[in-house]
Amino acid sequence: MKTRAAVAFAAGQPLSIETVDLAGPREGEVLVEIKATGLCHTDKYTLSGVDPEGIFPAILGHEGAGIVVDVGPGVKSLKKGDHVIPLYTPECRECEYCLNPKTNLCQKIRTTQGRGLMPDGSSRFSFNGQPILHYMGCSTFSNYTVLPEIALAKIREDAPFDKVCYIGCGVTTGIGAVIFTAKVEAGTNCVVFGLGGIGLNVIQGLKLVGANMIVGVDLNPEREKLARQFGMTHFVNPKNIDGDLVAHLVELTKGGADYSFECVGNVNLMRQALECCHKGWGVSTVIGVAEAGKEIATRPFQLVTGRRWQGSAFGGARGRTDVPKIVDWYMDKKINIDELITHKLTLDQINEGFDLMTRGESIRSVVVY
Amino acid sequence: MKTRAAVAFAAGQPLSIETVDLAGPREGEVLVEIKATGLCHTDKYTLSGVDPEGIFPAILGHEGAGIVVDVGPGVKSLKKGDHVIPLYTPECRECEYCLNPKTNLCQKIRTTQGRGLMPDGSSRFSFNGQPILHYMGCSTFSNYTVLPEIALAKIREDAPFDKVCYIGCGVTTGIGAVIFTAKVEAGTNCVVFGLGGIGLNVIQGLKLVGANMIVGVDLNPEREKLARQFGMTHFVNPKNIDGDLVAHLVELTKGGADYSFECVGNVNLMRQALECCHKGWGVSTVIGVAEAGKEIATRPFQLVTGRRWQGSAFGGARGRTDVPKIVDWYMDKKINIDELITHKLTLDQINEGFDLMTRGESIRSVVVY
Repeated sequence: MKTRAAVAFAAGQPLSIETVDLAGPREGEVLVEIKATGLCHTDKYTLSGVDPEGIFPAILGHEGAGIVVDVGPGVKSLKKGDHVIPLYTPECRECEYCLNPKTNLCQKIRTTQGRGLMPDGSSRFSFNGQPILHYMGCSTFSNYTVLPEIALAKIREDAPFDKVCYIGCGVTTGIGAVIFTAKVEAGTNCVVFGLGGIGLNVIQGLKLVGANMIVGVDLNPEREKLARQFGMTHFVNPKNIDGDLVAHLVELTKGGADYSFECVGNVNLMRQALECCHKGWGVSTVIGVAEAGKEIATRPFQLVTGRRWQGSAFGGARGRTDVPKIVDWYMDKKINIDELITHKLTLDQINEGFDLMTRGESIRSVVVY
Repeated sequence: MKTRAAVAFAAGQPLSIETVDLAGPREGEVLVEIKATGLCHTDKYTLSGVDPEGIFPAILGHEGAGIVVDVGPGVKSLKKGDHVIPLYTPECRECEYCLNPKTNLCQKIRTTQGRGLMPDGSSRFSFNGQPILHYMGCSTFSNYTVLPEIALAKIREDAPFDKVCYIGCGVTTGIGAVIFTAKVEAGTNCVVFGLGGIGLNVIQGLKLVGANMIVGVDLNPEREKLARQFGMTHFVNPKNIDGDLVAHLVELTKGGADYSFECVGNVNLMRQALECCHKGWGVSTVIGVAEAGKEIATRPFQLVTGRRWQGSAFGGARGRTDVPKIVDWYMDKKINIDELITHKLTLDQINEGFDLMTRGESIRSVVVY
């Protein structure tokens, strides 16, 4: 079949809107009509050429929502008409990782996914007879895409695609880091570094679980208002702090954060996030993705005196199990997505969406097909 | 009263055996006759002058066992004749830390302890009219010493002092890191860096909890035999590995360690210990004390892909609660201490004990009064 898609032919160039060829679903695969997709910093990072794992030509996009159009042989859990969210972290429920309750990092199709291919080692997309690669196993910048059955979460049918697509990455990454990775308890004091899309979702996750103090740290004073709406109780702008930021945060939280989250991808902030944690039990969770080659450092004394350092990918969520729950939370108004979606675009406007991101003018831009 | 003691008059000098003055116990304090004390690397570190927190003159030693001789006003949990182990990490059971189940780092008397003083800000030791400082709140290199009630674990009376003194530091630090800090489960694959006194105790802790693979890493091939006796299942000498040690350990453990422990105090080993952990869930625990100013580093990707980095002090044990249990384990032959105590000395021979340590000839030397 044919589908409209935004193709990344090479790093550093704008996406090109094309009509590409899409082969039908093979064994264990599902054809999905994408109804909406968010634009995420990870797409931008890959497109920029800085991502050492970026490969081209490819159809980017990994934060979508849509409807099942067709299923390949052997597909049992999904049927035509089901509403779904694509999962860049799949959930096969049978690999060593899925069977270990301590992780969400299903490895079933990791190798082929990293090479931009479907699990059988081939691509479903082509243009002028040349294959185009998949991206993060999703390629939601195409109106129609093919995914493995294990990489699709079935969601309720009354959920609006142009909102819940954000659950495919940003919402789950932020809220999940609080709930599934750090398992934050009610009454704790928490510090969030970075009040972008991920940080705001961490904040609403913290509010959801009943955190006591929710301190947001950001250099941009314009983030304060929205963050307070989402549950932030204290705002700290490092520019306005005399002296050491860590010491200030420890004092503000009366001894240090029970939990801290780094939502930027800056290794210096990661260190501050660890060191502002409470002696004895503070846990710091790295969410942001640092540039290739960058390293985090601290004195081991920070760990020996009881702080813990960990990370979170896709919020520690098991996609097929947890994503439908998060959709429910949205529909039950336990979490707020609407106000984070600052711009709606057509596929033709997708490059403008990335420009908004560059200028820091959007929280989340969503392409609606 | 008078007591014989090994006095550290200044850094870098041998200990001096003297008869010093000891004032009786004040409110909340207990006079203890030390019957035996181990010599620990931490004593040596402080004596060397490298420890930035070392202060002199002081009576070192923190790994003892003895008998209560007298109690000061207000002491309720101990009486004359009780057998006790001094605790450099006390357990007041009323500070913010003791009331938090996530930590063992009681802070009740931390400030004065760090200054070599009893909680009321004074010293009980003096020599020729000049005060001598306490050390780690214990000063077990004195035949008699005074401690706060909250810094003494009451133990059973049939336990031999010249063995269970080791539970005052090394045994608990190693076994506790496995049981209380990392909470290692049966069937897991574990890697231990360093097969000295702490590492061997980590190994017997791992055996106690039913670990599957217990891999020991040490440059000294002479450690292999004893480590195997204590439960090590695989020995890796980095000198004999072609290529990358981390890659070798990941392969040996079929994907990485579920738990790793650094028992040396070397920041490069701490990094290897983290990076040899299993993707998705491996937890690395730092036990060794690094030199002042040294830093640990890694790529944050190691954390984001599911490894956790933490530390352990005094094995995460709550002294008054857990030390008596570990004494029971020893008396029930669940753990082995006897073979780790390689040398018994008199107080007059204490400097020879430190020389043995320097030459790597001892696991643990114990002074018996």
